[in-house]
Amino acid sequence: MQKDKRQAALDYHEQPMPGKLAISITKPTENVSDLSLAYTPGVAEPVREIAKDPAAAYRYTAKGNLVAVITDGTAVLGLGDVGALAGKPVMEGKAVLFKKFADIDVFDIEVNAESPQTFIETVVRISPTFGGINLEDIKAPQCFDIEEALIERLDIPVFHDDQHGTAVVIAAGLLNALHLSNKKIEDVKIVCLGAGAAGIASMRLLVSMGARRSNIYMVDRQGVVHSQRRDLNAYKFMFANNTDKRTLEDALTDADVFIGVSGPDLVTADQIKKMAPNPLVFALSNPDPEIHPDTAKAAREDIIMATGRSDFPNQVNNVLGFPYIFRGALDVRARRINQEMLIAAVETIAQIAREPVQQDTYKAYPHLKEITFGPDYIIPKPMDNRLRERVPAAVAAAAVRTGVAQLPYPAHYPKQK
Amino acid sequence: MQKDKRQAALDYHEQPMPGKLAISITKPTENVSDLSLAYTPGVAEPVREIAKDPAAAYRYTAKGNLVAVITDGTAVLGLGDVGALAGKPVMEGKAVLFKKFADIDVFDIEVNAESPQTFIETVVRISPTFGGINLEDIKAPQCFDIEEALIERLDIPVFHDDQHGTAVVIAAGLLNALHLSNKKIEDVKIVCLGAGAAGIASMRLLVSMGARRSNIYMVDRQGVVHSQRRDLNAYKFMFANNTDKRTLEDALTDADVFIGVSGPDLVTADQIKKMAPNPLVFALSNPDPEIHPDTAKAAREDIIMATGRSDFPNQVNNVLGFPYIFRGALDVRARRINQEMLIAAVETIAQIAREPVQQDTYKAYPHLKEITFGPDYIIPKPMDNRLRERVPAAVAAAAVRTGVAQLPYPAHYPKQK
Repeated sequence: MQKDKRQAALDYHEQPMPGKLAISITKPTENVSDLSLAYTPGVAEPVREIAKDPAAAYRYTAKGNLVAVITDGTAVLGLGDVGALAGKPVMEGKAVLFKKFADIDVFDIEVNAESPQTFIETVVRISPTFGGINLEDIKAPQCFDIEEALIERLDIPVFHDDQHGTAVVIAAGLLNALHLSNKKIEDVKIVCLGAGAAGIASMRLLVSMGARRSNIYMVDRQGVVHSQRRDLNAYKFMFANNTDKRTLEDALTDADVFIGVSGPDLVTADQIKKMAPNPLVFALSNPDPEIHPDTAKAAREDIIMATGRSDFPNQVNNVLGFPYIFRGALDVRARRINQEMLIAAVETIAQIAREPVQQDTYKAYPHLKEITFGPDYIIPKPMDNRLRERVPAAVAAAAVRTGVAQLPYPAHYPKQK
Repeated sequence: MQKDKRQAALDYHEQPMPGKLAISITKPTENVSDLSLAYTPGVAEPVREIAKDPAAAYRYTAKGNLVAVITDGTAVLGLGDVGALAGKPVMEGKAVLFKKFADIDVFDIEVNAESPQTFIETVVRISPTFGGINLEDIKAPQCFDIEEALIERLDIPVFHDDQHGTAVVIAAGLLNALHLSNKKIEDVKIVCLGAGAAGIASMRLLVSMGARRSNIYMVDRQGVVHSQRRDLNAYKFMFANNTDKRTLEDALTDADVFIGVSGPDLVTADQIKKMAPNPLVFALSNPDPEIHPDTAKAAREDIIMATGRSDFPNQVNNVLGFPYIFRGALDVRARRINQEMLIAAVETIAQIAREPVQQDTYKAYPHLKEITFGPDYIIPKPMDNRLRERVPAAVAAAAVRTGVAQLPYPAHYPKQK
């Protein structure tokens, strides 16, 4: 990062006060009488109600709109295992996004855990505080076990955004790209470079949307994940392909889709040339993609390209997903976030990109030229207000439909067809 | 509680939205460029700085002004072991007080812990998040072990308000009452009814201020805590008196000071009559004191009386202490809150009550008649702005003086003599 941008980022975090979050009081506290309701003696009344019926916590405390963004600091951004404390600016940043895009209150919690087991125990113990848990920046494969255990043990939504948030937005972009290139998800050969949290979760989601396991080639540092390998963890093993392809280049040859969730500059122009006609290339490593969009587009013209960067078309940005998925889940008090809810989010995000961009979106992006659904616009912009209007509704409807909601579909939400 | 007051308390907590807290964003988030500083890619810069130097967390995150109010729900108000979740309204209320009186941000954390040990482990693991820990509503004697272990293991202030907050305000009131009755702390016979968190901590603090252990009679449900008893925990044992007094009445006979931190109506008018001349009676059980002030004052005229209630003179209210003790501790980044810092708070709170009440205090209490230092005014009112101006400064100065401060005495604080 350039020196001035670096300093701007540090200044932003330091001035005029450290960090990005504060607490605000939502009730009157002007006089002694207010305080006698907020604290003793009045506060005893909601305590008694919750002691009788735990669900009353949703009536009398902030729990129902409160999400924990929790990390152990083992996989922070692209920086790796920097430790819990150094992850705090990212967790606070996530809290900013939750609040800004979905008015969800977040406590960021940085956990010094010696093991996945102690991390799990810690989250379980503090979970009464919260209406939902967003796991963040936890390394694979531990993140899978951690999330699974927490979903099993808690009756509030637990969501690892690096897995499912990323997967949802990839899948939304991919649905639209397939549509534009007249390909069907059931037929396409997919190469996924990177078999960590995002890779595994994305492939799981695509499979649940119709992709065939036998068409998926997952590639890690050792090459193609195939059924003869003996070094695979259980999560990679689910995607072990019975194939004689061994290298990334083997896998890319005649492939329709490339999903890169790995590292910079791992794919060459020649490899892109070997892909099938109208290839879909999602090079999502950030800030430096697996192949630079200019290089890929110079290699062939029939490509649809997405990256993780805001300065190129088709940015795969988690903020299109997680705020609204949680908003919908909290608003019907979903016990969990299931695959149907994720697919509802995918389809709604994809649908929004197919409809004309609205005036208020252009206002949020003063430099944006007119854009219409097509190869350079398959994913909505983060500041598109329709996301807030429609994604939570779709997620909530799916929760109600699949029986994980504890409240009915909210009256103030748009009517579902 | 009357039905209308009860409903007012529930309504306050439920309307217009559940609970009393929300998150606010302290930095600009108007456009894509702001968000690229708050989150990726800009956020990587403070992450790198903190990974290099953990102290940078105080520059770039909210940690330095962020206190956890943590409970296990084992001793919530006077309601007992209602569980972690039911404690949430109280913890949120405490957060309200921290914010209102000292502009300290608080995350309330409710912990489902099977044992003191798992509670300790949980707090240690989430501690990187915070600049300080306020333990709340944890039953005795476990609370003593928990606090001791956490102070030992963490390098941020850990403070159990039910112990030390209460002790500080009791001691401030007592200093002034002793002054008015021309008694010396070294000489007075003290009876403490209740040997839980508040009782033990108050007696410890009074001893460190000059009270003699041999003059202290602690009384629990079994009567006087004396050196022949074999049922004492280590904390009560420290106050086991080598005496032949056995009952509360034995202890009260000729005693100068009564501190009640136990339950309603445990002391009779006859017992009060047996106390020494000019007795100081702090009947702090809430909402119903150990003896009603009217009953005690009818029994004898030479009494100075304090309660925990806002509708009688001399309310012993923790809010006079904890917000300012933490404010001072955080502002010099104290590694702990030591006895010297507590005594500095005691002396400053006591001193404020000796000075004329200011106009803005009367404004906050429209029904308050003119009050001056004397038997009916030995403790400042909670809305007295001088507390905020002077208590943190005294605490910070004590932290610097005793070597637990990691920052110098703040330039914006009033000069210390």
